[in-house]
Amino acid sequence: MIKITLPDGAVREYERGSSAFDVAKSISEGLARKVLAASINGEVWDAHRPIDTDASLKLLTWDDADGKATFWHSSAHLMAEAVEGAFPGVKFWVGPAIEKGFYYDMDLGDQKITEEDLLSLEKKMNELAKQKNLFIRKPIPKAEAVQYFAEKGDEYKLDLLSNLTDGEITFYTQGGFTDLCRGPHIPNTGFIKAIKLTSIAGAYWKGDEKNKQLTRIYGVTFPEQKELDEYVLMLEEAKKRDHRKLGKELGIFTFNDDVGPGLALWLPKGTIIIEELEALAKQTEKEAGYKRVVTPHLAKEQMYLTSGHLPYYADSMFPPMKMDGETYYLKPMNCPHHHKIFDAEPKSYKDLPYRIAEYGTCYRFEQSGELFGLMRVRCLHMNDAHIYCSKEDFAQEFRAVNDMYQKYFKIFGIEKYVMRLSLHDPEKLGQKYVNEPELWLETEELVRNVLIESNIPYVEVKGEGAFYGPKIDVQIWSAIGREFTLATNQVDFAQGRSFKLSFTNKDNSPEVPLIIHRAPLGTHERFIGFLLEHYAGKFPTWLAPLQVKILPISDKFMDYANTILETLKKADIRAEIDDRSEKIGRKIRDTEIAKVPYMLVIGEMEMNEGKVAIRRQGKGDIGVKLIGEFVQEIAAEIKDRVSE
Amino acid sequence: MIKITLPDGAVREYERGSSAFDVAKSISEGLARKVLAASINGEVWDAHRPIDTDASLKLLTWDDADGKATFWHSSAHLMAEAVEGAFPGVKFWVGPAIEKGFYYDMDLGDQKITEEDLLSLEKKMNELAKQKNLFIRKPIPKAEAVQYFAEKGDEYKLDLLSNLTDGEITFYTQGGFTDLCRGPHIPNTGFIKAIKLTSIAGAYWKGDEKNKQLTRIYGVTFPEQKELDEYVLMLEEAKKRDHRKLGKELGIFTFNDDVGPGLALWLPKGTIIIEELEALAKQTEKEAGYKRVVTPHLAKEQMYLTSGHLPYYADSMFPPMKMDGETYYLKPMNCPHHHKIFDAEPKSYKDLPYRIAEYGTCYRFEQSGELFGLMRVRCLHMNDAHIYCSKEDFAQEFRAVNDMYQKYFKIFGIEKYVMRLSLHDPEKLGQKYVNEPELWLETEELVRNVLIESNIPYVEVKGEGAFYGPKIDVQIWSAIGREFTLATNQVDFAQGRSFKLSFTNKDNSPEVPLIIHRAPLGTHERFIGFLLEHYAGKFPTWLAPLQVKILPISDKFMDYANTILETLKKADIRAEIDDRSEKIGRKIRDTEIAKVPYMLVIGEMEMNEGKVAIRRQGKGDIGVKLIGEFVQEIAAEIKDRVSE
Repeated sequence: MIKITLPDGAVREYERGSSAFDVAKSISEGLARKVLAASINGEVWDAHRPIDTDASLKLLTWDDADGKATFWHSSAHLMAEAVEGAFPGVKFWVGPAIEKGFYYDMDLGDQKITEEDLLSLEKKMNELAKQKNLFIRKPIPKAEAVQYFAEKGDEYKLDLLSNLTDGEITFYTQGGFTDLCRGPHIPNTGFIKAIKLTSIAGAYWKGDEKNKQLTRIYGVTFPEQKELDEYVLMLEEAKKRDHRKLGKELGIFTFNDDVGPGLALWLPKGTIIIEELEALAKQTEKEAGYKRVVTPHLAKEQMYLTSGHLPYYADSMFPPMKMDGETYYLKPMNCPHHHKIFDAEPKSYKDLPYRIAEYGTCYRFEQSGELFGLMRVRCLHMNDAHIYCSKEDFAQEFRAVNDMYQKYFKIFGIEKYVMRLSLHDPEKLGQKYVNEPELWLETEELVRNVLIESNIPYVEVKGEGAFYGPKIDVQIWSAIGREFTLATNQVDFAQGRSFKLSFTNKDNSPEVPLIIHRAPLGTHERFIGFLLEHYAGKFPTWLAPLQVKILPISDKFMDYANTILETLKKADIRAEIDDRSEKIGRKIRDTEIAKVPYMLVIGEMEMNEGKVAIRRQGKGDIGVKLIGEFVQEIAAEIKDRVSE
Repeated sequence: MIKITLPDGAVREYERGSSAFDVAKSISEGLARKVLAASINGEVWDAHRPIDTDASLKLLTWDDADGKATFWHSSAHLMAEAVEGAFPGVKFWVGPAIEKGFYYDMDLGDQKITEEDLLSLEKKMNELAKQKNLFIRKPIPKAEAVQYFAEKGDEYKLDLLSNLTDGEITFYTQGGFTDLCRGPHIPNTGFIKAIKLTSIAGAYWKGDEKNKQLTRIYGVTFPEQKELDEYVLMLEEAKKRDHRKLGKELGIFTFNDDVGPGLALWLPKGTIIIEELEALAKQTEKEAGYKRVVTPHLAKEQMYLTSGHLPYYADSMFPPMKMDGETYYLKPMNCPHHHKIFDAEPKSYKDLPYRIAEYGTCYRFEQSGELFGLMRVRCLHMNDAHIYCSKEDFAQEFRAVNDMYQKYFKIFGIEKYVMRLSLHDPEKLGQKYVNEPELWLETEELVRNVLIESNIPYVEVKGEGAFYGPKIDVQIWSAIGREFTLATNQVDFAQGRSFKLSFTNKDNSPEVPLIIHRAPLGTHERFIGFLLEHYAGKFPTWLAPLQVKILPISDKFMDYANTILETLKKADIRAEIDDRSEKIGRKIRDTEIAKVPYMLVIGEMEMNEGKVAIRRQGKGDIGVKLIGEFVQEIAAEIKDRVSE
């Protein structure tokens, strides 16, 4: 018998050679039907692979990231089987799962593939899926594997084999298709119920442009047709809501070749959004007892040696500047500067928690090929703050930070979120992580407890912590269900010591503070990029660059329009008059397109009665009101930051 | 007869060989007594030097910068005469006028000079001044001059002579002292009525540390004793108000070696001042029709080649960063980025004047030896904006900018200011100035006219314009009478063309806009440095980092103190409680030293009656009021930005 430890800590006994599937079945038949793979002692295995030793086991379904990855990798094999049928002689390179779906790179020889071929391939894949062919794992000696692909004349798989050693090589076969593959795979092709091959692209072999160009086919599959339908709809909607397209149409931001890639210029309308977000952050942080600071954008090399950025983070930093015999770097993060501010004046326990905030601008080097609109940039305006506190205060401070996140989620109508707790990897202590094994475990436990106590949805990931402590990445979903990484929240037990920070504790002794790094609104770049998609450019009134457009039916009403404009301006409402000599229908249409929340139509009746006819963006006519009444209502909507 | 044109345009006839003094005398005896020198066809001459041709003439008195410079240069000669008497064998190098006073560099051989010697030198100078010795100018052939100093064994003057050519060499003699000097000088030593030799310093010959170290004596003189007394008083006061000292005491800013020299870190209290200034600027600019933008802190080399910064301004820029095969520079000014924002979307005359503002952070390389507190830094937060307008709109826009300056002067209680109109130098076109002689003259005239029409005190200076157009430097005087250069206001007719900016004018043709660069509040660094001195750290309530300190007489009143604190916070007033177990006298004293505008003393009587006993910083007790009444008054004081 072997002992299997389940995630809840329960230990069960099974016959030696039982599989994860057997374990699932012993729990419930329903569960067993959903099992795609399993994590055995931290490694992902086929669900039907026999287990011969005691092990910890986690069943993986479609709800798990590793379950999805297995599903999509198996779908790549399914696609390869269909391709091999339609394009005899095709040779395959690699076919991994990706963030959403999979691809397979292949050499089609002289054959050409078109978008239309994708449809017949989909059809073929569906047929093969329905056959519920098992994915059969077979360990194979290297010599035998080499002979197999040599006979096939497949130089690609031979190349892959050349890097593998005997004992770690397996073949996987489903239906009539056999591939060199380390697996794992789903039990059989029948799990794949909905298939879409999305695009064809070229890809140089091994990513090197000196090599031959292979054909890459992208696809995505689901265990239910409904999910595919939703996904296709989401893609179409995401295309309409593309932040780069909306950003240009609405005059939010621009890039310029002479300035440089990844360096956004914020146009007047985008700057209004920035200033509203900063006002929100400042108000929230003030109420939460933060003080504000301002720091420069560079520092000497020594600072980043002390902070550990240069040893651990140099690849992401801008190149050095040599001046006065010193080497300077643009700051990739604000922390070291904030530490210097903490250190500028002596601190006692009475000054703690010392919370300092700054919308700091950081510079990070991203490969030019990885830059993407506002989502991946080189200049970031970060909603940053650092909290210096004692160990006793830590849990309370960390909880307050999480509360602040949730407050923001409510304001922006973010309904789905997950906190991803990134831990250290004990094997990389001293390389990727500061070498303090006990402090790692201690602070990871502190953070985990706060998340559990606060009832916050979270997942744990090993080996993704910051180099100075555990990190929480906050994942949020936009209104159309796309996932974004918004912000991070980090614990730092290392920099306090490296910067020799201390406060005088109650016993009158020097003590090193714990540091919390936090940025709930992330960066302006990424957050406004997210909001553009989330709101489809239709910002709630408080964020809208232009809040009210006054549309006089004819020039006759310009004086009255101006009176209204002045009234709105006095109430600090952003308003404009459409003074063009256009028909009112055209004026309304143009204002709708410009996504202005409110339109006030002004004609004879409105003028005579001191009223305005109100249209709400996307909703049409919402009635006639006295101007004073309208101002009161919209002012309240803005003040309360109503998100609708 | 010769024709003399006076500054008001009047032309008068005088005998050939008449002097400026004669001209003055013909106008009024009183005026003649005050003449120190004269500007003849733009060149400064001795008041008694004969004029042989028609000329334009401006009499120079103590009220003119050139009058003062002549006065102080003559004082340097007077000092040299006294030194020569006391230290036989002394050899002199150069003795120029400086911003305030003069110095003379000298080689004293083996002799030593002490601070005490300065007093006896002052005494001797006073004696010599009373002799009213004439400054006598004598043109002299080079050979004769060389012979004179060769016989004296004076290698320093021989070195000066080696760079001069025959015909331009003059000697000046007063009393028993003769010097090689191009002049001009004041008529006689009797004008110098008050003398103070301020310090002794070492100075390498020709500023090269490989050369011999000479002795430099600094001094300052005045035409009246009263002026010297005031000056000495001002120096003492300035020492007390030193912004570096106050900035540290009040926790406004700090510098840190690991960050780098000239890179201020703004502490929480300084950041409050920054945010109040930015709020003022944003409100003012919003009312004046500006839009706001946000731009990154660097750009590619090409941008600064186009802008002309690299050809004309490279020495003041930070060193380059090499990235992706491109060269990037930190921005020394915000203009190029703003031009790109202007250019991001097509503009028509309806969009003009297009005014975009940003508190932009610029980086300028200053020699480390020239860095000085907040006054000379490497990182500047600039109250920047650019106005793009047509030529027709220019005068009105430029006037509006000047009005904004004056509005600010009023808010900050700046009573004395001068605008210094810096023009181009025709001889340096194509080197220091863009080569557009006609545009220079045209725009200089436009600016001059606005200044005259607006009745703004101004002076003109040749050869100090920006490289792209005429510049106005705004000089202001602090409460203790020290002069500061606050800000600049520039016209730019060049960059619009180099950046290929254009708008569609009323004739539907493309037209290049004129650009106004302006920064009325200068940089946070310099302006807050100025304000620290101006207010002696006693900021008006609206700017004070902490506005109210609540001082309970004993712990018994802590609850009531907390109620008051909450009331103040709700009204957005920055307040704190002094909760130490100290005597009330001590609490008051400490709060006075911390320069908090208001103290609220809380005891039995105040608590029972819902009142507060109010003390105003520097003024003591100002009465007991209901808390609501106090809140109302201080809120109004803050809202109106009362400066007192």
